[in-house]
Amino acid sequence: MTITITAFERSPDGGKGLARDTRVRWALEEVGQPYEVRLVSFRAMKEPAHLALHPFGQIPTYEEGALALFETGSIVFHIAERHAGLLPDDADARARAITWMFAALNTVEPPILELTIAKIVEGDRPWSKERLPLVEDRIRDRLKQLSARLRDADWLDGGFSAGDLMMVSVLLRLKSSGILDDYPNLAAYLARGEARPAYKRAFEAQLAVNTGTPLPG
Amino acid sequence: MTITITAFERSPDGGKGLARDTRVRWALEEVGQPYEVRLVSFRAMKEPAHLALHPFGQIPTYEEGALALFETGSIVFHIAERHAGLLPDDADARARAITWMFAALNTVEPPILELTIAKIVEGDRPWSKERLPLVEDRIRDRLKQLSARLRDADWLDGGFSAGDLMMVSVLLRLKSSGILDDYPNLAAYLARGEARPAYKRAFEAQLAVNTGTPLPG
Repeated sequence: MTITITAFERSPDGGKGLARDTRVRWALEEVGQPYEVRLVSFRAMKEPAHLALHPFGQIPTYEEGALALFETGSIVFHIAERHAGLLPDDADARARAITWMFAALNTVEPPILELTIAKIVEGDRPWSKERLPLVEDRIRDRLKQLSARLRDADWLDGGFSAGDLMMVSVLLRLKSSGILDDYPNLAAYLARGEARPAYKRAFEAQLAVNTGTPLPG
Repeated sequence: MTITITAFERSPDGGKGLARDTRVRWALEEVGQPYEVRLVSFRAMKEPAHLALHPFGQIPTYEEGALALFETGSIVFHIAERHAGLLPDDADARARAITWMFAALNTVEPPILELTIAKIVEGDRPWSKERLPLVEDRIRDRLKQLSARLRDADWLDGGFSAGDLMMVSVLLRLKSSGILDDYPNLAAYLARGEARPAYKRAFEAQLAVNTGTPLPG
């Protein structure tokens, strides 16, 4: 059955790969599943047809036959559950990989998203400059703990998993901030994620949409 | 095998059930699994023994034989996957219930947690009063969308699931704010969750820890 995902017609990041469709593209590339993309405009995202697919009016969504899903974590998990390559076979190792997915989304990403809100949504408020260091400190608390756990390992728990896919995707949001420079093992971890052929294909695919460049082949 | 979770020796909320061990207790009560609780102090949570279990130095953790998990979403999912009562049998309905778990944790909870941070961590900052309405508006955006999706249904997608357990747990954080009064169907949804016998048992169990009251029986 054809897999169809949605993505921004024009991503707010201009193609840096931070829109969440990149995470789903990456997961599909890791497991070797072809997919189609339906682009949606900001206006269309808030209209009934899209809200029926995604109650919070966001991208990505995932359609496969009669199944329609939203929420990136759930979509990546669905892909990981059905195709080899993103979750270990051993039951305990699988549960730990899923743990890292949730940790990326519920523990590490929220303070990082708050930095984006502080800079973009509240960037022109009178408190912006004074408040920013507080927001960054809350991110550093998490990065310090994550760095201590990762140590010199390649991935968070054994081989690359959906947990790493999600954690790398979350850390990518910090790439332009310079904060990761203080955590060399996390910067190297991020680079390892970006170096994966599946990530590169996902990145190029979203970039082509945002720059209007046709993909080769 | 015995299930052991960790919880605060003294919860910062004094027993209102907002500490995340309540979510795990609730899931275990829904599926009828007995469990033991190991209480940890704030100091012990940041020490090596606990950090080995939970890299971010939080509660709850979950131990069952050789398996050790952290992150509430992952623990609740682990329980839901292994015992009947929290996920539907139908594959598509199961994927949708998991979607609501992720939506609760990655889309609805982050702005709600931000309100807690704005009130408690930044409550004495000069910008606090002026900034609070912005933070509340971001919560209202999400609640409006959630309310529109729920309409007059009892639960988010068919019968009660782990998705509802997580969404109700997240909305509970708003109970004292009065914000939910503007969304009567969400307030009723929250009340339905709190009325479940399994939730009541979980709530009473965490309350007993925090008030030092021995449980009956």
